[in-house]
Amino acid sequence: MTTTTKLKAAVIGLGSMGLGMARCIAKSGMEITGFDLNPDALKGLAQAGGKTAVSAAEAAAGSDVLVIVVVNAAQTRMILFGENGAAAKMQRGGVIVSCATMSPENAKSFAKEAQALGLHYLDAPISGGAAKAATGDLTFMASGAQEAFARAKPVLDVVAGKVYHLGDAAGAGASFKMVNQLLAGVHIAAACEAMTFAARLGLDLDKVYEVITASAGNSWMFENRVPHILEGDYAPRSAISIFTKDLGIISDMSRQEKFPVQMASSALQMFLATAACGMEGDDDASVARMIAQVCGLELPKKS
Amino acid sequence: MTTTTKLKAAVIGLGSMGLGMARCIAKSGMEITGFDLNPDALKGLAQAGGKTAVSAAEAAAGSDVLVIVVVNAAQTRMILFGENGAAAKMQRGGVIVSCATMSPENAKSFAKEAQALGLHYLDAPISGGAAKAATGDLTFMASGAQEAFARAKPVLDVVAGKVYHLGDAAGAGASFKMVNQLLAGVHIAAACEAMTFAARLGLDLDKVYEVITASAGNSWMFENRVPHILEGDYAPRSAISIFTKDLGIISDMSRQEKFPVQMASSALQMFLATAACGMEGDDDASVARMIAQVCGLELPKKS
Repeated sequence: MTTTTKLKAAVIGLGSMGLGMARCIAKSGMEITGFDLNPDALKGLAQAGGKTAVSAAEAAAGSDVLVIVVVNAAQTRMILFGENGAAAKMQRGGVIVSCATMSPENAKSFAKEAQALGLHYLDAPISGGAAKAATGDLTFMASGAQEAFARAKPVLDVVAGKVYHLGDAAGAGASFKMVNQLLAGVHIAAACEAMTFAARLGLDLDKVYEVITASAGNSWMFENRVPHILEGDYAPRSAISIFTKDLGIISDMSRQEKFPVQMASSALQMFLATAACGMEGDDDASVARMIAQVCGLELPKKS
Repeated sequence: MTTTTKLKAAVIGLGSMGLGMARCIAKSGMEITGFDLNPDALKGLAQAGGKTAVSAAEAAAGSDVLVIVVVNAAQTRMILFGENGAAAKMQRGGVIVSCATMSPENAKSFAKEAQALGLHYLDAPISGGAAKAATGDLTFMASGAQEAFARAKPVLDVVAGKVYHLGDAAGAGASFKMVNQLLAGVHIAAACEAMTFAARLGLDLDKVYEVITASAGNSWMFENRVPHILEGDYAPRSAISIFTKDLGIISDMSRQEKFPVQMASSALQMFLATAACGMEGDDDASVARMIAQVCGLELPKKS
């Protein structure tokens, strides 16, 4: 369709997720400009046929769909609406696709600011990791006006394997993502606790993995993260700092809503203890190493 | 094989799991005698062609394989080794298949008592629930001497879908089961926390189930238990009391081993709070009702 190929897209934030998305957009033939502070990331986009910019505002200039994939709400706010903000440079009637994990309150306030600039806003947190980003198979937990979905569709078609339509206003997408992160964080902490407990009991850890993944104690995170422990490989696929951040948002929301979240709170403390041990930038399965360190336990070493 | 059909089996404890196993054994043509305090359970076994006894000792008399499926270690001890104990009535060289969830220490001590009576002992906790028990598809997390496995084989072949051989001594089976229960208990508490948090955020709970079960926040327990919340149906498929018991064993082991289990400890407190609200005998998804009660939240009602 001619409307698709004429559309100007921008991607701000070319980490593993953003770069994967930007490359998928470039390969589809759409016009795309990307920005990141990391020059290697810019090179990666250029190799896939995308344009690069020297600032977020330059990347955003005249764009119809702007995807922003940064770490948190503070970065999203600064880049979109701060000094020399990217949002004001977009084509009027364009749509911001905001992917960072944040509280529903932040998502709602960004949608308002976008509206004041004559822009649409899609509250669109993602999941799936670098691998799914690379192949255009991310899952979007999205909410926003029909018009926002419609305008973002040509880009979503290229980067998403699945788009959940979770409501017609910003906030719902963020809420769904936070519920997912609550569970994901608790399950990682539980997996690390269970595996170190098994080690203390003297069990064969490979066998524990085999038995548990076939039993009622299994979780997506157990299945995905425990191999890092078995291989002694703590290179960050997703870092401890992601969950101190996301469970931190849950903690903020919990106090805001006066709603106790005992499991999430325990998990947050374990991620914080792991960060306190100096492993904030390591893989989130490092919670197991923190427990092992506290308890004087041997875990498998990288071969 | 003639050895299979000549073998005398006994099942003590005809709850939903024990009765399912006993009926499978009866239907296979093996000679079986069962005992339970509940007369309805005895009737259920008689209908399937099994014999019934008026005491555990009578059921055990002359048996080659005795399966004991009671609530905990205390019941197992009393029935097997207490006054007029069942173990002493068995055929010499017979095997006890002990299925209750218990600490590895208890399993080890029962194995010793069995040995002193000239019996074999299989430390064989089960999982799979009533449905899998009925069709002979239970999973056994078992450890014990080769001889114990060999002698129990004709019965295991009939009642088990899968038998994990987890070591040659009692204790390992129990340890694997406890690791599974740690995760299962944490995941139920987390599922209930996440769903009530979602309700507080005003999300469509059916949609939350759809999105989470397809996302990284999923667990076996989330997928299995959350439908009870969505249907408002808290008839006990597995009761709160099972997890106050099993996480209680984890808590005992934690202190015994001087090994902190922060996640399991938080989950135990939530199950205890639910029991304190008078829901000890209700389905374990009732943790969600406890949170809803504390927070003044509406959950779906049974239609």
